[in-house]
Amino acid sequence: MSEMGDRIAEALSRIRQEKPLIHHITNFVVMNDTANVTLHVGALPVMAHAAEEVSEMVSLAGALVLNPGTLSPAWVESMLIAGRQANQRDIPIVLDPVGAGATKLRTESNLRLLSDLKIAIVRGNSGEIGALSGAGGLVKGVESVAGVQDPIAVARALARERETVVAITGKRDIISDGERVLGVDNGHEWLQTNTGTGCMSTTMIAAFAAVERDYLWAAAAGLACFGLAAELAAEKAMGPASFKVALFDQIYNLTPEQLAEGAKIVELT
Amino acid sequence: MSEMGDRIAEALSRIRQEKPLIHHITNFVVMNDTANVTLHVGALPVMAHAAEEVSEMVSLAGALVLNPGTLSPAWVESMLIAGRQANQRDIPIVLDPVGAGATKLRTESNLRLLSDLKIAIVRGNSGEIGALSGAGGLVKGVESVAGVQDPIAVARALARERETVVAITGKRDIISDGERVLGVDNGHEWLQTNTGTGCMSTTMIAAFAAVERDYLWAAAAGLACFGLAAELAAEKAMGPASFKVALFDQIYNLTPEQLAEGAKIVELT
Amino acid sequence: MSEMGDRIAEALSRIRQEKPLIHHITNFVVMNDTANVTLHVGALPVMAHAAEEVSEMVSLAGALVLNPGTLSPAWVESMLIAGRQANQRDIPIVLDPVGAGATKLRTESNLRLLSDLKIAIVRGNSGEIGALSGAGGLVKGVESVAGVQDPIAVARALARERETVVAITGKRDIISDGERVLGVDNGHEWLQTNTGTGCMSTTMIAAFAAVERDYLWAAAAGLACFGLAAELAAEKAMGPASFKVALFDQIYNLTPEQLAEGAKIVELT
Repeated sequence: MSEMGDRIAEALSRIRQEKPLIHHITNFVVMNDTANVTLHVGALPVMAHAAEEVSEMVSLAGALVLNPGTLSPAWVESMLIAGRQANQRDIPIVLDPVGAGATKLRTESNLRLLSDLKIAIVRGNSGEIGALSGAGGLVKGVESVAGVQDPIAVARALARERETVVAITGKRDIISDGERVLGVDNGHEWLQTNTGTGCMSTTMIAAFAAVERDYLWAAAAGLACFGLAAELAAEKAMGPASFKVALFDQIYNLTPEQLAEGAKIVELT
Repeated sequence: MSEMGDRIAEALSRIRQEKPLIHHITNFVVMNDTANVTLHVGALPVMAHAAEEVSEMVSLAGALVLNPGTLSPAWVESMLIAGRQANQRDIPIVLDPVGAGATKLRTESNLRLLSDLKIAIVRGNSGEIGALSGAGGLVKGVESVAGVQDPIAVARALARERETVVAITGKRDIISDGERVLGVDNGHEWLQTNTGTGCMSTTMIAAFAAVERDYLWAAAAGLACFGLAAELAAEKAMGPASFKVALFDQIYNLTPEQLAEGAKIVELT
Repeated sequence: MSEMGDRIAEALSRIRQEKPLIHHITNFVVMNDTANVTLHVGALPVMAHAAEEVSEMVSLAGALVLNPGTLSPAWVESMLIAGRQANQRDIPIVLDPVGAGATKLRTESNLRLLSDLKIAIVRGNSGEIGALSGAGGLVKGVESVAGVQDPIAVARALARERETVVAITGKRDIISDGERVLGVDNGHEWLQTNTGTGCMSTTMIAAFAAVERDYLWAAAAGLACFGLAAELAAEKAMGPASFKVALFDQIYNLTPEQLAEGAKIVELT
């Protein structure tokens, strides 16, 4: 663990020194939470969706989050405008395909973002990634009710096909760039009792992607950091809302040393 | 209380077993809170408003919440599309007429939803229901500043006229299907210190309506459950925000047995 | 302090007696928080942005908040419609120019609101006010990364040019109506760890502007009240989220006597 641990601990330190701007075009449900998570981990958030400004805004950013969780066609257009500019400037894009598989609009919009843009990292639950990969998976609203059978194979195949990094979050998170595969075993079941914790983990990944250009490692670091904060917060939980307060406090208070020691990342190939 | 208590306790158990999807087309202010309340009571939330997907999304749902609290004409159109599909599939619609009476747009949009759709339950404060029923009532922003004189008569008359269940929330909640009238005496004054607690109670009603097809009882159960959680949470309140944390924790922690014992529902006719 | 203290303490009492409606046309990130802050200080919030209703809604209001933090051209048009009606009725407008300086759309939209409307108070960080005044200032997303050199001179000059009150928030808040200059030394560094605390302070100012027609004093009172609540809340902070819970509780619990005693307002000219 020590070499890996040092690497992601150093990335956390870099986030706090460089304070990269994380430009989000995201859903209405989580905007406040993901802005706060961005701040707590040490980066700067901005939420901006107007077609008239997204290209200019993303030019200042260290990473771009595209999260069509309450999508409309106009917002998807803004995502494409921002994404093209991000690609031109080599700014990493992290895609959170919320609800892919639940409706045709969601599945097709996410596939279009994957096709038209160079996406650095896609993070979704097993049902969402299954819907995008054609490997099956059933999504009820935004919840995965039936995931893919073999997440390692699906993550690797989709990553290879789309030339991206794919992260499937679950009890063990599976991350692949098409060749390498990592597993992250941090996390806590309290996370499932709050809305938007998937979106928050995507924001954490984006903060790491802004300072760590090996996106496989950025994704693993973001998920380990978020999951570890959840583990530490769980001790103070009396229910979902007190857990969320403790989680946000803990993201802020987490030291690089704690992260180096507590991250549970395994190389699976 | 015991027969009533058993009935609503069983409904709460069914929510947690079946995890019905509650599709919300709701206002920006409360989206995060009502998504969380949906999860905490045991159901699954989805927020989706695009005209292109609402019909498909609602088809998977156990109930549909229409809450035009930050309405615009385009969102009202999406509500109508989703509502028509819900009606066709016999999925209950719960309407929260936020701010009816405050502006012409709000009053007319809510009346249109009531006219064009078969609404299972309408829940509003006294001023809002007064505005919809023509019985008077004054609304300042989204707050009832002067309610109806005789809530029982107004609820019963509006329920009969619109063939729906009407719930007027206040110190004693009054619920009628046009014939029967129930009163719910659960609740706590801390609820008034937070925004969106009316919207949250509507979400609770929708979760119960997804498993209990006698909508008079679904409305009473949702309000009793929410009000009881507030009573239990009040002990931990140091102010509005710590109350809200305790309320959300308590909704999650509330057992069917506690609900059976603590619900204060009275038959008024 | 005693005369000043009595004056702003009396204003806080008036908010709680009169419960003025504060109409917000604001950004998606903070809607829930600023609605809650409005309630906690003692006023009534409403969020409404539809061009079809903003003129009618603002007519009932004690103050109008314009906060283009997640702006689009259509929302700016609604702000202009509401603002013109507010001006006609002599209802004070408080402008929060979120992200002015970060993109052309933000800078120009805020300048247009300043030009086309009579704004009672503008509150921004040093970078945002710098961008509006032409005095420089650099904004990264919504964060001031390089402020104006001489905030007193800039606040006074912009206030004079625009015939408004300008409040530049920072370690010491600087407020000027073009002649008089006040400094407010309340506040706590925990405020910087949460998103939207600037927006919350604008809402506090608007609540005071609804009852205190000397807008220089309304701005100082709002900032002192918010900053004092933050100081008192800081004792309970274990991190940003527990601080926010304590802050909201404290705004609600703050008495006029505490405000009279704890406000740190200095006359700088």
